[in-house]
Order: sequence, then structure tokens, then C-alpha cells
Amino acid sequence: MPYRAPVEDFRFLLDHVVDFAQVAATERFGDATPETVEAILSGAGRLSEEVLAPLNRNGDLQGAKLENGVVRASPGFAEGYRQIAEGGWVGTSADPEFGGMGLPLTLNSCVNDMMGAACLALQLNPLLTQGQIEALEHHASDEIKALYLPKLISGEWTGTMNLTEPQAGSDVGALRSRAEPNGDGSYAVSGQKIFISWGDHDVAENVCHLVLARLPDGAPGTRGISLFIVPKYLPDAEGNPGVANSLKVVSLEHKMGLHGSPTAVMQFDGATGWMVGAPHKGMAAMFTMMNNARLGVGIQGISVADGAYQHALAYALDRVQGKPVTGTHGGIIDHPDVRRMLIGMKAELFAARAIALANAVAIDMARATGDAEWDARAALLTPITKSYGTDTGIAVAQAGIQIHGGMGFIEETGAAQYLRDVRVTAIYEGTNGIQAADLVARKMMDQGEAAFRLIEEIEEGAEAARGRLPDLAGAVWLAAESLRDGTEALLAQAMTDRLAGSVAYQRAFALVLGAHFHLKAALAEGGEGSRTALARSFILRMLPQHGALLAEMREGAADLYAHNIESLAS
Amino acid sequence: MPYRAPVEDFRFLLDHVVDFAQVAATERFGDATPETVEAILSGAGRLSEEVLAPLNRNGDLQGAKLENGVVRASPGFAEGYRQIAEGGWVGTSADPEFGGMGLPLTLNSCVNDMMGAACLALQLNPLLTQGQIEALEHHASDEIKALYLPKLISGEWTGTMNLTEPQAGSDVGALRSRAEPNGDGSYAVSGQKIFISWGDHDVAENVCHLVLARLPDGAPGTRGISLFIVPKYLPDAEGNPGVANSLKVVSLEHKMGLHGSPTAVMQFDGATGWMVGAPHKGMAAMFTMMNNARLGVGIQGISVADGAYQHALAYALDRVQGKPVTGTHGGIIDHPDVRRMLIGMKAELFAARAIALANAVAIDMARATGDAEWDARAALLTPITKSYGTDTGIAVAQAGIQIHGGMGFIEETGAAQYLRDVRVTAIYEGTNGIQAADLVARKMMDQGEAAFRLIEEIEEGAEAARGRLPDLAGAVWLAAESLRDGTEALLAQAMTDRLAGSVAYQRAFALVLGAHFHLKAALAEGGEGSRTALARSFILRMLPQHGALLAEMREGAADLYAHNIESLAS
Repeated sequence: MPYRAPVEDFRFLLDHVVDFAQVAATERFGDATPETVEAILSGAGRLSEEVLAPLNRNGDLQGAKLENGVVRASPGFAEGYRQIAEGGWVGTSADPEFGGMGLPLTLNSCVNDMMGAACLALQLNPLLTQGQIEALEHHASDEIKALYLPKLISGEWTGTMNLTEPQAGSDVGALRSRAEPNGDGSYAVSGQKIFISWGDHDVAENVCHLVLARLPDGAPGTRGISLFIVPKYLPDAEGNPGVANSLKVVSLEHKMGLHGSPTAVMQFDGATGWMVGAPHKGMAAMFTMMNNARLGVGIQGISVADGAYQHALAYALDRVQGKPVTGTHGGIIDHPDVRRMLIGMKAELFAARAIALANAVAIDMARATGDAEWDARAALLTPITKSYGTDTGIAVAQAGIQIHGGMGFIEETGAAQYLRDVRVTAIYEGTNGIQAADLVARKMMDQGEAAFRLIEEIEEGAEAARGRLPDLAGAVWLAAESLRDGTEALLAQAMTDRLAGSVAYQRAFALVLGAHFHLKAALAEGGEGSRTALARSFILRMLPQHGALLAEMREGAADLYAHNIESLAS
Repeated sequence: MPYRAPVEDFRFLLDHVVDFAQVAATERFGDATPETVEAILSGAGRLSEEVLAPLNRNGDLQGAKLENGVVRASPGFAEGYRQIAEGGWVGTSADPEFGGMGLPLTLNSCVNDMMGAACLALQLNPLLTQGQIEALEHHASDEIKALYLPKLISGEWTGTMNLTEPQAGSDVGALRSRAEPNGDGSYAVSGQKIFISWGDHDVAENVCHLVLARLPDGAPGTRGISLFIVPKYLPDAEGNPGVANSLKVVSLEHKMGLHGSPTAVMQFDGATGWMVGAPHKGMAAMFTMMNNARLGVGIQGISVADGAYQHALAYALDRVQGKPVTGTHGGIIDHPDVRRMLIGMKAELFAARAIALANAVAIDMARATGDAEWDARAALLTPITKSYGTDTGIAVAQAGIQIHGGMGFIEETGAAQYLRDVRVTAIYEGTNGIQAADLVARKMMDQGEAAFRLIEEIEEGAEAARGRLPDLAGAVWLAAESLRDGTEALLAQAMTDRLAGSVAYQRAFALVLGAHFHLKAALAEGGEGSRTALARSFILRMLPQHGALLAEMREGAADLYAHNIESLAS
């Protein structure tokens, strides 16, 4: 079965679950009328189904290659990219002043979800460019904006993020790349960067690198880092790609998956770059962009979950083994355990997608209204979206393989590719452990204010559903209370204890939140029907895990530090 | 860090956790003295560390190849196999009358665990041969035994299992392969079989296929299936490989992992074979062998968990990122979340290994004493060992990748190979869903008698530990009570409900059982020390999940069948 874009699902989520109407009601996003939403969803859906999905296996089998210092993209990727660019899908949310559509990030998230489900390796390219566009919009000088934004938004040029160095991964502050002033306003950037996705390619005419490096007077650690834009080809007087810059691809990584996305080791040898933002404020600029990139990566996980789910469902409908245990379809979907897996996949996919779209709505509302509460909501949801979205991608892809039985291990079926591709999403853009640390440390610096406000909303939602769906509403209300207690317990913990329980807490929060959105969906269809059935399965089957997770969180770190290192190695 | 065989761990498990002494005290296994145990563990450990582990990456990078109809094994595999064979490790548990060591399956399980951790793809070859040896020992005529067993046990010949056909996977009864009597006591076997691991190769001089096929008068379904031994080369008058049989490798599969193990599509065109066991009783013969093969595959999962754990631990000790949060090592192991992952990995590994060895002890005791209670114990533990062992392999390999951060996605580090290789173990030899169905249906035909007897032992163990470790003992006791209640609830369910909750029940059982063995280990070291710390982490962090799992089990199938198929596809 080919990929089918879930346009109806998005419409339902926007209309009934994440209250997109409030975004469209703002002045800033007044253009996001129902007609526009329809056009965006169906346009990106068609592109994903017809153009991008057919490229997915090419990317896996014939990955990007480094030939004579130049990266060649997978067969068909150049044409796929061209259609993404020409459709305007790089700049769905970008500033109209520079050619963007200026639409809400919520719609852009739907677009990215469909493109990622169809071909994750190629979709990563515009996702990175979107991050760069955002960084430039917020932090670059007018000159840089005028030069780069139109090219990036139109997709003529693409963008990369250059943070990691061999000794500086999660610890970005340990980076050694340097930038020396050239005296003409530009800088000479030198250093080696690793894990640079789409660091080079032949699908667009220029590649613009955002590079973190240290000025000569930059302090050690994160406080002494600045941000530079370093193009592969230096723009000439007309703003077209001119002389080649002093940078090169040293090698491409041999990865578990996502072969269609070239992952480069980049060498900068006094490459010419221009500073973005203020000196030594590179991390702040990166963080602006990173928060939304994290939303984007969470959506990548969700998108693969959708692809893997659709793929497994098609197999389970088609494949016959033995007599149906219960049910009348005839395929293995009639076996209770196969049905359990499929419904679990769909239920987690829905929960993760609702969380991600609620996150995007919060970002849009923050931008449109400047309201700090929306900002805090977005900040709180970001690590949850990223980790739960990508964990769901992995779990659903795993289940997809399992449903295929022996065929799941055979590459021809495509089930394994989903797992191999999505695996990195739990790692890049800050590992899911880093997300959890962000959630329990930085995002709780408000003493849980944003968390408690959200828990309050969950309880109000449960109250509203109590008449129609008393059992489900009761379960969600109790879980929210338990999350409130857990949050209080977390806030009372020392930081080491918080960190030890951070991943468990993060997942518990996601499950309660997912149940909340499922309940809203069920209520929206009147408490009867397919969405109610899905809500029931999620609330009965997945939500109960939150108790064990919060119990683990409460244990803190004491038992972990009772082990000595020698005993772990014996 | 190279693989280190956990010889001390095995000794501790045998002596203090799974009561191997009772096996050694039987007449049948009187040879399994402490000196023999020591020699077996250290000998197989050395082979695994020095000979097999260095082959593992070769197998992944240069998988087996089909060239002109002949399969060429990965570089070095022939020599590795030769050393396995010459060490006698194919026949550790085989009948001494035909050259085996006649040692307990428990010791063979330790040997397989070490060989699998070192090189899973190669270890699968002797594992399959062991299954064939067992089937022949139990079901073959004296003539077949005399001809084949010495060759298989010495490793001169290898064995395969030919069950699956394209339309007959989990539903073995749907197979179409046929066997016609040749009139001379032999049969002409025809049909196509898929997923035949080590179906052909160049590491030994003959390949013996055990093939399920239907006699002309065989009834449809599983009742009409017979078992045949079909060698690649027909033995000549001296019992040496002679004329080539009418069978061939059609193709090799392109798999997600385990590239070093050739997975063949086999074509039998009137190939000469001899019946093993009685006509139409092939399934019974397969089941004898399958139970122990399931134990063997569970151990494969555990072995990869050990490899992946050791690999990730070495990285976490070596890799420095940021300031230690708490702890004095300096590596990322000082970060609470990394430490949590590592300790979780080690704790699950221990639990799974203890369950598998207790399973092997039960099989050995059943063989040595003929006691039906031991048989029932072994039968009950087999699906739990297989599913929990392989799920643990996958979970630990996943965590190993995560600990490596970005490097986990890069193939050079080897972290990804563990996941790609181990993934199939949850599928082959009966998917873990099939194991769960076996547990809640066939293995509960005694109305839970074997399960309740085991739960009783868990509670006695908790009582014995109450004085020294009151909190841990209390938690295990309560969990056992909850498992008892859950088992009663399961037995009261209709079969569709049981099947819907089977995977959850299976995992809950494994967690309670794992906690029981951890508690035994803690008590054995006096309630203080590294094993007690590990027990505490398992009981505090993992065991609580059993509640949510049993809650899911109690839901039965009602909500799953409230979804209509159309709504799942929309």
C-alpha cells in the first residue's frame, strides 16, 4: 500500500483537539482561513503521496555518495527537492517579506509530517533550512537577511546546522572551532564539524552553513560562542553563488539508516563567514532555532510512526495465517495480539501528533500575541514533543516489523527501513535524555507554574467529559492528579534525583497529555465512534503506565549511585 | 573494549540462583562436577573472546553470498566454525554414545550465551545443529542415528530446520511441501521452503535439512505433516558425503541484520529424504526440538544484551561530556540518566539470564528424573525465556545505541549492529506473540497449576528474604500476589480475551520472576554488595511495571474489537 496523507486527521485535530481556530483568529495569522488550510493540507498531501513517497526506498538502497569531493544525492532526490521548493514548502511559515507564506507553524508542522512520512531522508533537508531561516529572521542583520532569506525560502539554497565536534556533542561548550575577524566585517572560520546533515549535495545551487565557533576573545564554555553563516559558494555582487569558500566535505558517515541524507564531516579552513547575532551570543541564537527544530524532529518521529503504521496495517489486512480467532476480516488483523499492536500504534501516533500540534499552536500563539504564558507552554511542551514523538516513531516502527513476522526482517518489505531511519531522531537535536534534563531543570525554573497550568487544563477537560464518558474522564482526571503530585515531588528533589527520574517523568507527562487529547477527540465526536474507541484503548492500555513511571521518578538517584563502577564492569 | 565472557556471573548464577547443584546431583548428570563446569565455562569463554568476537563485524560487513549456486560464508567464519566444532561445543549436551559430552543443557546454555554474544550470526549455525541432534536423538531410527549423529555432533555436518513456506509461517499447518515414498524406505521430497538459516554454506562438508512435508495420504492441517531428513549430499556406503541431492538454494535474503548468517530460499525437487519419527507425527517431533530451540533463541537475545551492555559501558566510561553531575569517574557514566540506562540494562540482563538458566535446569531435571512437575516447569518457562530474553536483547541494544549518542547511529561503532542482529530473535522460532499465545493457552491447560506452583516458590523466596531485606522482599511478595490474582483472572477469561492480554501477562510474569531471582542473588551475598544494589534497582525501577501490564491484561479484547477495520485505515 502506498502512503496516504492523513488530511482528514489533521483537519479533525486542528478543528477539535488543538483549537487551531484561536491561531487563525489572531491578526498575524488571519490568512490561515479554512480555505487556506484545506489548500495547504491537500497540496502537501498530494506532493507527499505522489512525488516523495516513491523516492523513499531509493534513498535507502542508493544512499548519498561522496565522489571527488562532491556529494551526489540519491536517485530522484533532486527532482523531489525541486518540487518541494517550487511548491513553496520550504517557506510555509517564513516571512512573506522574503517570499515565505507567513502561515502558522502549526500548518508547517502538518506539511512536515506528511513529507517526513513519505521520505524522511529528503524531508530533513528543508527542515534544516527552515531552522536556518528562523535563526536568520530573528538574529541576522538586515543585509544578511536580504541576501540569504529569499534564496533559502525559495529553496534555491539550503541550510545546515554546524554544532557538533568530535569532543563536543551534548556538551556544545567544549567546541574548538575558531573565527578570526578579517577586518572587512567578515570572519575566517576554521575547525572540523561532524554529523552535518545535508552538509553537501547536488540538489540546490548553494549550501549555507550556520557554524558555531569561538572568537579570539571568546570565553571558554558556552558563553564564549558566536554564530556565523558560512556559504559553500560566496555570493557575488548580484547575490548569486560565486567563488568557492574554503570548506570541504571530508567524508560521509556510514549510518544505520537515513542513507538518503548525507551526514558529512565538514572541514572549515579559514572559510569566510558573517556573524549572526551579537558576539558571544551564538548559543542564544541557536536556542531560538533549536526549540523549533526540536518540534520538527518530534514530528519526524510521528511521521515515521504514520508511515510504519499504514504499512503494517496494509500487511495485516492482506496477510492470512490460520483461522481468524475473532473477527470477520480474514487477515491476521483478526488475531487479537496483532489487533492489539495495530491499535496501540494508532493510539500512540494520535497522542504524539496531538501533543506536537498543541506545541505548535502554543508557539504560534506566543508569536501572534506575545503572551508569556503561551511562551511558557511552548517551552514546556517542546522536550515532551521531541522525546515522545521520536520514542513513538521507534516503538511503532518496532511493532510494524513484528506484525510482518519473518518478512519484517527482510529489507524488501520496507518495514525495517522505518526503524533504521527513525532511530536517529531520538538522538539528534539533543538526545531524548537531554530533552528530559531540559524538562526537569530549565523548564521547571518557574517552579512548575507552566506544568501546573497545563495539568489544570487537563482536569478541566476531564470534568467537561465526565457526563458523557464517565469512566474515561475519571481515569484521566485521576492520572492528572497523580501527575500533579508527581510534579510536586519532582520539584522537591535535588537535581541529581530529578535527572535520574527525568526520562520516566517525561514519559508519564506525555501519556497523561496524550490521554487528555484522546478524551477531547472522543468528546468531539459525541462519545461514540472510532475516535472514542481509540481513546478508550489508549486510556485503558497505555495510560496506566504513568503510575509505574512516576514511581520510578520518585526513587531518585540513590540506588543508582549505590553501584560502584567496578561492579558494573564485572 | 573487546567482549569479556562473564564466567564469574555464570558460576554465581549456577551456584546461588538457579540451584544447579541439584542437576549435578542426579545420576544422569553426575559428570557435571565443579571442575567440569569450570573447564566448560572457561574453555567456551576463551573461544568466544579470542576467536569468535573478532569475527562479528566481518559477518556484518561482508555477509554470506550466493555465488554460482553455492553459499560462501563471511571471511573467517570457516575457521571460527572449525574451532567451535573441534572444541566439541556443538555437542556439549549431546549423547556420549555418538560423541557428545552428555552434559546438562544448563551448561550448554552458558556456552551458547558466550558464543552468541561474541558472534551471533555464526553461533546460530551450531544452535540449529543442536536442535537437529535433539530431534534425531528423540525420534529417529537407530540407523539414522548411527549415520547422522556422529557427523552432526562432531560438527563435520551441520543441520537446518525447514518449516516455513511463503503461505505457511506461524500457521505451519498450511504447508504444501510433499513427500512421496520411493519404495526403498526413502522419500522424494518436493517443495519450497523460506527463511532457512544456514541453508547452505562452505564451513562444513554436508548440510542436513530437517524438512516438514506431507505424505500423499497426509490430512490437511498440522495433523497430516511428517518430518524428513534430507541431506545436501547423500551419504555413500561409508557414510561420507556422496552424490548431490536434488535440492538447491534459490536465493539469499537481504536482511536488516545477521548478515553473516545466510538465510536461504530452498527448493527441493524430489530430493531424497528419510522419515524421522512416525508418519503424520512430524509436528510432535518438531515440538520436542522447538521447545529447546526456543530456549536457545531466548539465550541469543540475552547474549546480545550482554554484548551490547559491555560495549555501551566501555563507551560510557571512556567518553567525557561536560562536568560530572554526580560521581567521580569523569565519563558520561557520571550523568544520572546514562547511569540509569546502564544499570537498567544490566539488571534486565541478569533477570533474563536467570530465567533462562532456571528454564534449562528444569529441562535437565525433567530429563534426569522423569518428574512431570519439572516438565511442566520447563514448559511454562520456555515462552517466557524466549520472549523476555529477546525483548531484553532488543531493549538493551536500543539503550546501547542511545548511550552512544550520535555515534550510536554510525555503523563503525558497532552499537547499531547489536540491534540489527538481535531484532530477528523476537520473530523467529515463533514470534513473541506466538510465545504469549502458547503461554496463556497451551501452558495454562493445567488450569495454572505449574504457574501457581512457581508463584508459591516466589513467595517462599520472599519470605526467606524478609528478615535481611524487608523492603525488597515485601515488594516481591506483593508482586507475586498480584501475579497470582492476575493468573486467576486470566484463567477466567474467554480465549480471545486471554490472547489480547497475553503479551502483557507474559511480560508481567517475567518481571516478577526476574525480581525473584534478583532477590535470591541479593540474599546469597548477604543482602549487601553489588548484587544487592542491582536487585534493588530492578525491584524499584522495573518491577512496578507489572501492575500496569496486569491491568492491561484484565481489559481483555472488548475494546480492541470495538474498532471497525475501516476506521483503523482512516
